[in-house]
Amino acid sequence: MALLVQKFGGSSVGTIDRIQKVAANIIKAKQEGHNIVVVVSAMYGETDRLIQLAHALSSDPNPREYDILVSTGEQASMALLAIALTQNNCSSRSYTGAQAGILTDNVHTKARILDVKTDAIRKDLANGHVVVVAGFQGVNEHGETTTLGRGGSDTTAVALAAALNADECQIFTDVDGVYTTDPKMIAEARLISQISYEEMLEMASLGAKVLQMRSVEIASKHNVPLRVLSSFNEGPGTLVTLEEKIMKKRLVSGIAFSREEAIISLSGVPNRPGIEGHILGLISEANIEIDMIAQNATDEQHTDFTFTMHRGDFPKALKLAEQLALELGAGTIKSTANVAKLSLVGIGMRSHTGVASTMFKALGNADINIQMITTSEIKISVIIEEDCLERGVRAVHQAFELDKATSEKFPAHMES
Amino acid sequence: MALLVQKFGGSSVGTIDRIQKVAANIIKAKQEGHNIVVVVSAMYGETDRLIQLAHALSSDPNPREYDILVSTGEQASMALLAIALTQNNCSSRSYTGAQAGILTDNVHTKARILDVKTDAIRKDLANGHVVVVAGFQGVNEHGETTTLGRGGSDTTAVALAAALNADECQIFTDVDGVYTTDPKMIAEARLISQISYEEMLEMASLGAKVLQMRSVEIASKHNVPLRVLSSFNEGPGTLVTLEEKIMKKRLVSGIAFSREEAIISLSGVPNRPGIEGHILGLISEANIEIDMIAQNATDEQHTDFTFTMHRGDFPKALKLAEQLALELGAGTIKSTANVAKLSLVGIGMRSHTGVASTMFKALGNADINIQMITTSEIKISVIIEEDCLERGVRAVHQAFELDKATSEKFPAHMES
Repeated sequence: MALLVQKFGGSSVGTIDRIQKVAANIIKAKQEGHNIVVVVSAMYGETDRLIQLAHALSSDPNPREYDILVSTGEQASMALLAIALTQNNCSSRSYTGAQAGILTDNVHTKARILDVKTDAIRKDLANGHVVVVAGFQGVNEHGETTTLGRGGSDTTAVALAAALNADECQIFTDVDGVYTTDPKMIAEARLISQISYEEMLEMASLGAKVLQMRSVEIASKHNVPLRVLSSFNEGPGTLVTLEEKIMKKRLVSGIAFSREEAIISLSGVPNRPGIEGHILGLISEANIEIDMIAQNATDEQHTDFTFTMHRGDFPKALKLAEQLALELGAGTIKSTANVAKLSLVGIGMRSHTGVASTMFKALGNADINIQMITTSEIKISVIIEEDCLERGVRAVHQAFELDKATSEKFPAHMES
Repeated sequence: MALLVQKFGGSSVGTIDRIQKVAANIIKAKQEGHNIVVVVSAMYGETDRLIQLAHALSSDPNPREYDILVSTGEQASMALLAIALTQNNCSSRSYTGAQAGILTDNVHTKARILDVKTDAIRKDLANGHVVVVAGFQGVNEHGETTTLGRGGSDTTAVALAAALNADECQIFTDVDGVYTTDPKMIAEARLISQISYEEMLEMASLGAKVLQMRSVEIASKHNVPLRVLSSFNEGPGTLVTLEEKIMKKRLVSGIAFSREEAIISLSGVPNRPGIEGHILGLISEANIEIDMIAQNATDEQHTDFTFTMHRGDFPKALKLAEQLALELGAGTIKSTANVAKLSLVGIGMRSHTGVASTMFKALGNADINIQMITTSEIKISVIIEEDCLERGVRAVHQAFELDKATSEKFPAHMES
């Protein structure tokens, strides 16, 4: 008998039929002998409807009121699910974030969970109830409802799982789990059965579609086994867990990517201390979010400085870069708004240098020019022309045999 | 500077435009120097939408879950109104029933208010905020959300006004106030400027369209001046207050009526102790709600027993009456399903016997047969054929000169 926290997203509870299906899922797990705590999102479309109402009244709605408004979405779906469970003879009790004791800081619309008081939930579980908790919301020290920001229901689920010391936190979504890359682009993409927290975090661009990154951080911090699986199809999904618990280790786990990137290079920038801080300071003051940054000194007096951003910020960023070039007496500006980012992620690459060269060779063989490279311990990211993205992902996916369940060429223990 | 509690119903906050109009109303009152506490219902249609969702999942939704579900309607509208106020530079803070300290008993879906903890609201008022409270809801001793039943927002407003010792509780509706009778039927019906709590309660069938009767009871008990007025048109509305505070007293205040009544008479019922309890016991066991009851002994051995009910219950009640007649050896059963009730209400009639005869003469002159009469201290009700109802109301309305602002013929001091 395990204690499971199961989270169902907005599309899983989007209609009366789907709520009934979710209830049947839960009842099945309950009948298998498990204790169940359920976290639900708002019914699909409901949060947007509420936000539209708020924005019809104010372009910048009061955050305290905004939070109590949008929190009604999850409050309604939790009650509906509890009604469905009770109707099917599964005793159930619902809790808002406040009632569930999810205490947050005071930052309305993107609050952080500080503590979870689980007394009431533990008592209900001991009495055989299925507990249903509204996701995405909590309460601050003043008794005011707060929300955790978009996707916050995942965070609620993981925080509850951590506080309850649950055996597993199961995130039910409309996909079967985490794939080696986007299966809509690469048909050979394979479902990853196990992945480490760190890899999941680095997979952000892929992972963000199925899991909120903040929830992975919390799961990692509290060592909560996190499983991503489908509300609609049976299957084991993907287990996100500690690196040492992963059975079949591989050198690389997957390929993430993001489109709609833009790149700006300043070359011939005077190489003096503090210059990077100056450049980035001006850019962040303009509320432009920088993604990748690379710098390399061209000679003793000069350096090249390259950064990427979301394409929407490109015109503003380019204007700033031109002002900076004038001010700093930099040489030339090179920029493109039609690039994409491709990232290879894998814990195995930590100590294995061959990964980068295999990746670059694969891209080279596919005749793809690399415009920028950044690396972290378990990720290599490159910027390439957006038109080449699909070809690039396919080339790298094949090069590392990610379509195969196990790879003889690239097991993780091939390292040094 | 007065402390006003203003309640706005579902149609007053039914659209974004109307919410903005309500906000403008409130800001005007605030600028006149008043302290304002606002109570709002759910946006028009929202409560029905939520109830439909619940009933799609269960014919008998769990009451605890039902309450937290439907309470989202008022929670959303309170936040939207607070957003509108804040957007217009009127500082405002919203409260759910639980946050506002509206403590109720544990009877889900029709809870009664036990206490109101006003500390937070008083503090906000002292700081110059407009306080917006979700109507219709409270919290029980276990921290669970309860609802007060349909129309409960009126009750919330009056309970808050009582707890805050407000100068006036203003119920904004889609009518201009309480009329001497339904102006849709009788064009000459006149807006009543002042009416006593007791008369308002006796006007139930008319009054229920504008005020929840429970809220009038609470207002009466705590002596809260209650004003019914229009959200859409300017005007003083109707003030419901203590009898002794009413300036221009009249013998009668208004004529209430209800259609869809049915009447059953058992004649020749053996006149023995306990017979009435026996008859009514059987009827109430069948879940039939009896409205009027009249009984008069025809001779020493026999009595006539007449009662009315809603027309929907008529077939069931008639069947029961037939069984009873057999069992009791009663003589005959007389019944009609096409009757209506006409009630004349007025505090002045307490000590003035002429009222009944004036009323009956008016009906007689209009050639209307009275099938049943009951009286209370300040109300006379008659059952007549439904087809005669409009003619009857018009006749009585004219007879008491209710269309005139003051009546020389029927002032209240004409008594004794």
